[in-house]
Amino acid sequence: MHILVTGAGGFIGSHVVRTLAAQGHTVFATVRKHKMTQSQNQPPADVHFLELNLGDCAALPAAVHECCPEVTIHLAWYTKPGEYWTAPVNLDCVSATLRMARVLAEAGCRKLVVAGTCAEYDWDSGFLSEECTPLKPRTLYGACKNALREMLEFYCRETSMQFAWARLFYLYGPGENRERFVPSIILPLLHGQTARCTNGEQVRDFLHVEDVAGAIAAVATGNFTGAVNIASGQPVKIRRIVETIARILDLPDRIVFGGIQETTPEVPLLVADVRRLARGVGWTPSHTLEQGLAETVDWWRSV
Amino acid sequence: MHILVTGAGGFIGSHVVRTLAAQGHTVFATVRKHKMTQSQNQPPADVHFLELNLGDCAALPAAVHECCPEVTIHLAWYTKPGEYWTAPVNLDCVSATLRMARVLAEAGCRKLVVAGTCAEYDWDSGFLSEECTPLKPRTLYGACKNALREMLEFYCRETSMQFAWARLFYLYGPGENRERFVPSIILPLLHGQTARCTNGEQVRDFLHVEDVAGAIAAVATGNFTGAVNIASGQPVKIRRIVETIARILDLPDRIVFGGIQETTPEVPLLVADVRRLARGVGWTPSHTLEQGLAETVDWWRSV
Repeated sequence: MHILVTGAGGFIGSHVVRTLAAQGHTVFATVRKHKMTQSQNQPPADVHFLELNLGDCAALPAAVHECCPEVTIHLAWYTKPGEYWTAPVNLDCVSATLRMARVLAEAGCRKLVVAGTCAEYDWDSGFLSEECTPLKPRTLYGACKNALREMLEFYCRETSMQFAWARLFYLYGPGENRERFVPSIILPLLHGQTARCTNGEQVRDFLHVEDVAGAIAAVATGNFTGAVNIASGQPVKIRRIVETIARILDLPDRIVFGGIQETTPEVPLLVADVRRLARGVGWTPSHTLEQGLAETVDWWRSV
Repeated sequence: MHILVTGAGGFIGSHVVRTLAAQGHTVFATVRKHKMTQSQNQPPADVHFLELNLGDCAALPAAVHECCPEVTIHLAWYTKPGEYWTAPVNLDCVSATLRMARVLAEAGCRKLVVAGTCAEYDWDSGFLSEECTPLKPRTLYGACKNALREMLEFYCRETSMQFAWARLFYLYGPGENRERFVPSIILPLLHGQTARCTNGEQVRDFLHVEDVAGAIAAVATGNFTGAVNIASGQPVKIRRIVETIARILDLPDRIVFGGIQETTPEVPLLVADVRRLARGVGWTPSHTLEQGLAETVDWWRSV
């Protein structure tokens, strides 16, 4: 299958590209200029890298026509830790995606898969289900993703392009930005420092990035259409993740719980309903949290 | 006050420009090229016309910096009768608006007022209230407006730009597109033909375009922020509008009820809650339906 992946230089995108290539698909991977070199370092077979800024109106149609994708997985977005929740550039990401959707539909792309977010849901609900949880974002980022989904659902109905919306929850694994949660615990410990975190009582839903990539690939290459949570369905306290990392590194005394305040909106519980992922997409994760964190620690040791 | 009005060559825009100019404001009116000449035919004092296609990324910042608006009223959109409900170009209108919002905020515009639509609401509700009616569009047009509102609400919270969303209902009056409902009754009768319409049993909420313009001007120049219905609050059967026009023209036998099918999604009742318009904005209409239709018939006779 010819598959176009945007944001292929990113945390999730790089794993999605590898997963699809390993499955034997021909992958066209768009990467921004400054990420081009690092992405091409170890290019898997049958991956064709395209240097493209999706905000570049003029370059987009040519790039799409070059690869003629049957399926497109759109992951490119502004993701700077902390800032992406409120950054005005979220609006530009919406515009770029709308423009790309039109180009893809006109080029005969059969299916479009776009990354959504658990931040579309009403977080007061705690258990976040595609079936019944109200969509009520609290942030500009969540509002832009939610608005984009609504528009693309209606737009794709007017075209022959199928549409799937992969709502991402919390994730971790090799290649994550150093400023995000799991690296913010692993790296200080690896460097002989103490790791500071919140009190850790909040319950979240974490999935290893390779599982995230596997789920997205399953959505993209299968028959599923509509919105689906990409998550583990396993509630886990932040404290347990931190303690697991400390145990793997045998440094239980180097953690300062309550040493920092959460920056994102604080709610006690966020867990995904994964029944649609399991039954509709037919996909279940392969990593346990303990195994995934151990692999992630090993990866950070190696870089 | 310096006020920028987009879509100033359109049905609503031309009336908004006249209303604001009559109130003594300095108006900058953006008009697409092909509408430039007709708009400048009778330019009110203190109206400055700018030829601008909002889709033109390069021209927009220069135009905004030229007029430095304190308030912007954004009415430009794709409105071809029948087609606008499902046209892909709705996506481009969203992108152009998002881009404009960023340019305006960066240029120090104090308030942004954008035209919304009753098609954002769940039409099964019948009585459409900002306070309690669910937002559940049925069409790409309604979805794009609803999505745009959601994004702009969050975006404007991140800036110092105030935001108001004027949800338009049904309207009529001088200058309306010939293919829309009221002209589709008046024009055949004026030309000695029969006028065909639906069975006319559906109840709607109609407001004269000069009242629409007055309400939008009140929202723009006052302190109101948030979403507000721009409507009469008066339920009226389509049949009564048709019969009123026929009575004005003294041609009651030239109407064929049931001669055509409705093209838009059919529901029995759509009436606006106008309490927020009356109390929050402090505005009430000045035209009665009979008087407004009589003036509209006179206008069509004169052109």
